[in-house]
Amino acid sequence: MISKIPEIDTVELHYFKESDDRKQVSKIPFLKIIDQTLLPGKIEFLYLSETEEIREAIYLLKVRGAPAIGVAAAIGIYVIAERIETENYEEFFKSFDTTKARLASARPTAVNLFWALERMAKVVTENREAGVKVIKGLLKKEAENIRDEDIEACRKIGEHGLSLIKDGDGILTHCNAGRLATVRYGTALAPIHLGREKGYNFRVYTDETRPLLQGARLSAFELYVAGVDTTLICDNMASTVMKKGLIQAVFVGCDRLAANGDVCNKIGTSGVAILAKHYGIPFYSFLPVSTIDMSLKTGDDIVIEERDAGEVTDMWYKEPMAPKGVKVFNPAFDVTDNELITAIVTERGIIRPPFDKGLRDIMGANP
Amino acid sequence: MISKIPEIDTVELHYFKESDDRKQVSKIPFLKIIDQTLLPGKIEFLYLSETEEIREAIYLLKVRGAPAIGVAAAIGIYVIAERIETENYEEFFKSFDTTKARLASARPTAVNLFWALERMAKVVTENREAGVKVIKGLLKKEAENIRDEDIEACRKIGEHGLSLIKDGDGILTHCNAGRLATVRYGTALAPIHLGREKGYNFRVYTDETRPLLQGARLSAFELYVAGVDTTLICDNMASTVMKKGLIQAVFVGCDRLAANGDVCNKIGTSGVAILAKHYGIPFYSFLPVSTIDMSLKTGDDIVIEERDAGEVTDMWYKEPMAPKGVKVFNPAFDVTDNELITAIVTERGIIRPPFDKGLRDIMGANP
Repeated sequence: MISKIPEIDTVELHYFKESDDRKQVSKIPFLKIIDQTLLPGKIEFLYLSETEEIREAIYLLKVRGAPAIGVAAAIGIYVIAERIETENYEEFFKSFDTTKARLASARPTAVNLFWALERMAKVVTENREAGVKVIKGLLKKEAENIRDEDIEACRKIGEHGLSLIKDGDGILTHCNAGRLATVRYGTALAPIHLGREKGYNFRVYTDETRPLLQGARLSAFELYVAGVDTTLICDNMASTVMKKGLIQAVFVGCDRLAANGDVCNKIGTSGVAILAKHYGIPFYSFLPVSTIDMSLKTGDDIVIEERDAGEVTDMWYKEPMAPKGVKVFNPAFDVTDNELITAIVTERGIIRPPFDKGLRDIMGANP
Repeated sequence: MISKIPEIDTVELHYFKESDDRKQVSKIPFLKIIDQTLLPGKIEFLYLSETEEIREAIYLLKVRGAPAIGVAAAIGIYVIAERIETENYEEFFKSFDTTKARLASARPTAVNLFWALERMAKVVTENREAGVKVIKGLLKKEAENIRDEDIEACRKIGEHGLSLIKDGDGILTHCNAGRLATVRYGTALAPIHLGREKGYNFRVYTDETRPLLQGARLSAFELYVAGVDTTLICDNMASTVMKKGLIQAVFVGCDRLAANGDVCNKIGTSGVAILAKHYGIPFYSFLPVSTIDMSLKTGDDIVIEERDAGEVTDMWYKEPMAPKGVKVFNPAFDVTDNELITAIVTERGIIRPPFDKGLRDIMGANP
């Protein structure tokens, strides 16, 4: 049994593999991640430096969670760029741009992926005259900035979130918007981790979150090993725990937020929001501002990733759990209408309806 | 791949095992069931005659679904009674009564279990003077009556249900209230099977129904092999398919109905009902009148079975899917408030609100 998560960040820029002799530390960097598909059974680190292996890590959810995907993409594209062997800007740009397109195609919904890649690309295009060597240094700095901003944003999100609940409250969460979805702290779970450090005793109910069970494998895991009072339930039990009065607030993350406050998040989130409204329980979505996509008027415009039937019909199973050949609908996300959301919690503060105005206000100065 | 379900009833009274030489057919009867825990991978029949193996079959959901449990209990207690070797009524009654208590303790929620056992017990107590041999014959007849009434009730439920939908409609169902939950036809799925025979093309969406996946393993299976357009979804995808306009009605079964119309059914049913109300989709519960418990004023009085954590944390899985030791809440049923229910469909007709009056009316003459 793994009793704690190592004191490392979920996504790191790393200059050697643990297995290597430390003397061999070179200037060749890696994107280091925890392989989240193996949790909670096994903690295994991956050291990635090739475009296809980084793309695959994102596609297969070895690294997942909108903020963590953004940071992994930033560090990833820097690591790949560092290896581009040319001093010629045009050649460098062409190679960088091809890599960017490959990484961007890994998952269509989480906006942080595109946001991070665009920030990195801007470094390249805005420093054309400085030369490839300088650009590589600036890319490293920008990747580190994106990582550091994520850590700082999550800490602030946690503090804002903590003001919404009181000691002893029951919190329902769906999927994993915890430290494993970010570099540190998490978004929706940041208030729980922060509160735990301050001596608060929250009771957290985690939906297991089919089909990939991020709630069972990741949220229940990271909360349980952090000493939080954690109860795992199946997704279809949320109505019952709410009805029993066990839940005082719902905390979820966000993969993309539209300008009107519609929340695109893990499949099932909209259902939880409808239940919360029915039972009169406040429903909060937590996100760094990098998750806000002001170019989208509403959530209807968001492309929802559909994934393989096998994730539903036979992933992990020893016995067939569905008839072979039956149709399966497997969307990875859904959109929760803004009217179902009590407030949106960002590092810049808590936004309450009307969300369009609130979002314009916080994004206006620094979109 | 199993391409069809054999043309036999889900629960049967049987006088030989398939493996036996037919010449060995004796007067020793068995309760014959399909082991539903092995579906859809394998069709295996069980021939049961001992109290503990029949109790275990019910507890472990080898036979499940409120109507099927009732018939299995009736045939089961007859089969056991047939083997009681005494001509003395007092001895016979004592043995019968002990068996009845053991079977009744297998599952606390489905009322059909107690209802069927009470009907069988009445045969014993009301025919005391007739002698044990005659009583055994009457028990056989009563078990056959209960079975035949179930078949007839489900056929009528199917006809009533068919009047609620039209060709091409999308129907969402949760858990399995199909032919595998009854002797034949099913309750909530009876209109689909009946409609299919009449050439209707319904589109059925089946919630997989965690933790035991009766929706994926049983409903998707029995519909798919019957040629029905069937799409499997995870429980948390119901909101999305409703929002997309794919669902025109929700059809679910019932394990116990209170006098006010509160529906106790598989965990997750209340959540589906709340979603249906939110999206303006009619929600129907299907049941034979044997599932109605007029002694319960409301659903709050129903004892909800809680089952093992292992069903949620590691059943069927090769890899750990949750941290070892984490708390799990695993209720097998929930109660859907009557205000969320559009109509209740029984063999005696369709009951609309106010349910308390409607139920009194249909139960009045023949409770």
